Amino acid sequence: MAIQEKRVLATEELEKMRHSASHVMAEAVSLIFPETRFGIGPAIEDGFYYDFELPRPLVNEDLPVIEARMREIIARNEPFIREEVAKEEAEKIFLAQPYKLELIRELPDAKVSTYRQGAFVDLCRGPHVKSTGQIGAFKLMSIAGAYWRGEETRPMLQRIYGVAFATEEQLQDYLHKLEEAQRRDHRRLGKELELYSIHDEAGPGLVMWHPNGAAVRRAIEDFWKDEHALRGYELVYTPHIAKVDLWKTSGHWEFYRENLYSPMDIDEQEYIVKPMNCLGHIIIYKTQKRSYRDLPLRYAELGTVYRYERSGVLHGLTRVRGFTQDDAHIFCTPEQLEDEIAGVVELVRFMMKTFGFEHYDMYLSTRPEKYAGSLEGWKVATDALANVLQRLGIEYKVDPGEGVFYGPKIDTKLHDALGREWQGPTIQVDFNLPQRFNVTYVAADSKEQQVFMVHRAVLGSMERFMGCLIEHYAGAFPAWLAPVQAVVIPIADRHLEYARRVESELKRERFRVRVDSRSERMNAKIREAQLQKVPYMLVVGDKESQSGNVSVRLRTGKDLGSMSLSDFKAKAGDTIATRALEV
Amino acid sequence: MAIQEKRVLATEELEKMRHSASHVMAEAVSLIFPETRFGIGPAIEDGFYYDFELPRPLVNEDLPVIEARMREIIARNEPFIREEVAKEEAEKIFLAQPYKLELIRELPDAKVSTYRQGAFVDLCRGPHVKSTGQIGAFKLMSIAGAYWRGEETRPMLQRIYGVAFATEEQLQDYLHKLEEAQRRDHRRLGKELELYSIHDEAGPGLVMWHPNGAAVRRAIEDFWKDEHALRGYELVYTPHIAKVDLWKTSGHWEFYRENLYSPMDIDEQEYIVKPMNCLGHIIIYKTQKRSYRDLPLRYAELGTVYRYERSGVLHGLTRVRGFTQDDAHIFCTPEQLEDEIAGVVELVRFMMKTFGFEHYDMYLSTRPEKYAGSLEGWKVATDALANVLQRLGIEYKVDPGEGVFYGPKIDTKLHDALGREWQGPTIQVDFNLPQRFNVTYVAADSKEQQVFMVHRAVLGSMERFMGCLIEHYAGAFPAWLAPVQAVVIPIADRHLEYARRVESELKRERFRVRVDSRSERMNAKIREAQLQKVPYMLVVGDKESQSGNVSVRLRTGKDLGSMSLSDFKAKAGDTIATRALEV
Repeated sequence: MAIQEKRVLATEELEKMRHSASHVMAEAVSLIFPETRFGIGPAIEDGFYYDFELPRPLVNEDLPVIEARMREIIARNEPFIREEVAKEEAEKIFLAQPYKLELIRELPDAKVSTYRQGAFVDLCRGPHVKSTGQIGAFKLMSIAGAYWRGEETRPMLQRIYGVAFATEEQLQDYLHKLEEAQRRDHRRLGKELELYSIHDEAGPGLVMWHPNGAAVRRAIEDFWKDEHALRGYELVYTPHIAKVDLWKTSGHWEFYRENLYSPMDIDEQEYIVKPMNCLGHIIIYKTQKRSYRDLPLRYAELGTVYRYERSGVLHGLTRVRGFTQDDAHIFCTPEQLEDEIAGVVELVRFMMKTFGFEHYDMYLSTRPEKYAGSLEGWKVATDALANVLQRLGIEYKVDPGEGVFYGPKIDTKLHDALGREWQGPTIQVDFNLPQRFNVTYVAADSKEQQVFMVHRAVLGSMERFMGCLIEHYAGAFPAWLAPVQAVVIPIADRHLEYARRVESELKRERFRVRVDSRSERMNAKIREAQLQKVPYMLVVGDKESQSGNVSVRLRTGKDLGSMSLSDFKAKAGDTIATRALEV
Repeated sequence: MAIQEKRVLATEELEKMRHSASHVMAEAVSLIFPETRFGIGPAIEDGFYYDFELPRPLVNEDLPVIEARMREIIARNEPFIREEVAKEEAEKIFLAQPYKLELIRELPDAKVSTYRQGAFVDLCRGPHVKSTGQIGAFKLMSIAGAYWRGEETRPMLQRIYGVAFATEEQLQDYLHKLEEAQRRDHRRLGKELELYSIHDEAGPGLVMWHPNGAAVRRAIEDFWKDEHALRGYELVYTPHIAKVDLWKTSGHWEFYRENLYSPMDIDEQEYIVKPMNCLGHIIIYKTQKRSYRDLPLRYAELGTVYRYERSGVLHGLTRVRGFTQDDAHIFCTPEQLEDEIAGVVELVRFMMKTFGFEHYDMYLSTRPEKYAGSLEGWKVATDALANVLQRLGIEYKVDPGEGVFYGPKIDTKLHDALGREWQGPTIQVDFNLPQRFNVTYVAADSKEQQVFMVHRAVLGSMERFMGCLIEHYAGAFPAWLAPVQAVVIPIADRHLEYARRVESELKRERFRVRVDSRSERMNAKIREAQLQKVPYMLVVGDKESQSGNVSVRLRTGKDLGSMSLSDFKAKAGDTIATRALEV
């Protein structure tokens, strides 16, 4: 908890400073354009903005000019002076400022507060830093149009966005991360590396996985299936459409309607595309009478589901309308619950490590005010979740009352290479569905008992996880995931035949390999392979063709020199088989 | 062609004999029930039936009695005598037979023909065999209700079904196959082996793959993906829903409407669940400008599609509403077409052999009256298909005019272990979609050309192919496909720990293995494993636990004796890795 409080304090300090920077920017703008009419200028995440009505449109070249004036004001270290004035007095002060006047008239109190630094006065509730000198490192970022008060019928003002941090180092770090984030943007890399595409003609939020993206996905899926089989999960497949009645029984039709697609009519029955895989798994469970001796049963499915999202929130692979969950449902007795949860947490840790996520936070969400199931059931389940985290020595945070109505859960947030958070694995106990579908087992005492059901997804969805992986690795996937693991580069056309032999020999051993047979110079081919972030480049010329060798170059630029093809196979094969993160 | 003519002749002879058997059955029935009113009695596939109005409902015990009477009539070798009589004369003959009278009155000619054997006369067009002695081996099979003329408002008659063959051997062969077919029925085995289920509550024709079925499916899919990768196919994934406009452009909305599901509304746009995967692949193709140097491109997808089928025709796994095609689309130049088709045919042969289908027939279907594309395109494509079949020395049959409107095709029919035909691989050239979606490439002369597109499915669909495999193998899958490849059978509870060690060691090497830990006697466990058609039973007792051995028993009953676990791993591993058909 200590960590969190510190973070909150820091945020408040920063916010004050950023808000002050916005006043300073406003003063700087007023010095350049005395006729400026001022809108509002709040602190926002990472910085601030201010809206202005100006005599001419701003251009990017204005930003350094404004920045220079801001620096002068900061250098003068002028104090921020708060004054409370009567509304009538305020209306006089802001006589030439129609937007401020509008705000003043709407304020409920008889007095309003102003903040002044130097010659600039603003209508403002505060708080601010003591003086302009306390403003840290800042940078103006961009210009955008913004309607006054966000209403399309009101005037369009000009907004300047800035960022501000306590230190220059933090600012540079932020700018670096921003640049990195743009460089790593999975939408940009998705296109450049031909991983996937989304098309309005087929439908927004519906992903087409191109050969390169599909190769990564297959590598993930094969690993996922093998690992789940090893851990006692059983694969199932269930259809993508089903009668809507199932979701009426489950309660989703009532509570989750806005995310369900409209029904289609089949033989006068309503069907929908499935928004989740649980019900199919329950149906399979219920085909047999289950005894406590049959439990736990763990059904796993890479199940593609469809959920409505407003088109405005759709974003690349991370917010889509159709996605494949790496789903599983565990059916167990109350006594088995803790071990089952422990198994899932172990699997989560193993998988996150394998995919190169060193840092993640776990959150335990407990019973909300409205809940399904019994208090006793909630206690058993919440204790099981907490016990597991403690037993495994995992630091976690409690989100009191943030469980889903149907049960408590553990959510995991991954930190990527830039330290950004991604929604990750989730483990949820469910009291609702076993009750609604009467999912039971025969206990040792021959009595029929309601089963405990756990929903869990380790990667979340193939789409979001892929988006996260692309950004985490900036497209340079570990060799076991790389769409193309090796490119064979013949130096001249006469080496093409040997290159093809190398290709087919590697292919037979399941390497993902291709030959760059274009009539380009070797360097151009190497550059292209590097742009495509291919882990291994196998250059073959006269010497290699004669000796049966390949000259191996890594995408890092490192040159491993000439080696026999079987040496390369052993070396790269090991890197791939062990799922090494580095090439 | 010679083979086919012989079959047709044989069929005509058989049909005559079966029709004669139906008259003999009618005579036998009239001897037992003199008040019988006769409906009609045609030959059908494998046999015959006759509809009767009788004084009491028939029971199965009546059938041997009728059969005995038939045998007497056959022993008397009475001639079938044809007579032509005027309609008025016929009405007198059949005065007591209202159904016959109804038929006579409807006949257009002034004269009608009758056939008589012994004292029994029937209204009949013929032909018949010379005398009742020429009737071969027969058996009455079942009794069913049948409305007169199939109309629900007319009287319900009683129908007796029989089968008849030239020789007793053929009859026995047929009865054996029938019994075998029932024993192999994939719906029965699907339940017994817990491979899949279908539920009215989720929707008819929508398959839930249980862990056992899913394990087989995964083995098939992994093999399929690896083999396709080796042969230059690239995997893609496309969504299961898309805007209906795509299918309006493709023509499916117009020509294929009855098989499409009703649209669902998303943001005021109509979407449907996809009935085929082609359009997604076309969209991926079109994300880049393609040059002839980029071609051929081969996109492969295990794509689940949904098509409406009337509920009456749904049948287990073989006729469903949702199914996963092992689909691929090849985009190529006209010059590449023949080699591409050859590649597909080779793949078909390899896969069919791998799955244990020795016998299959290929059919080349040519241009129908209504067609898309140019005559020249049809010639290029049809020649390519025919050339490949000839080049590879494959005997095939031409189905003139039976191509789809969008192009010629090769269909393959598989023969299963009982000699029954199953719809198998299909290879179709398509002129329609490349034109409608303007799918092009830049040719060597820098001109934009329409691409040649090939649809192909080797297995057809995972569902139908699975149904076929189950029946072909009567559920006893080759080891590489078996849901559970090995069961470890501890002789007593004290061997359970060692059994678990064997299990986990085998699991680590990707064997599908489980322990039968029930407190049952060893023989009961072996019987259960045999019922479940598990290829390997590994019995472990004191000796095995001490020596680190397993006693290996095959599901065929063969006992391989005790061997070290690593010997077993090597032996079974080889059987699995080579996809051997026999254990």
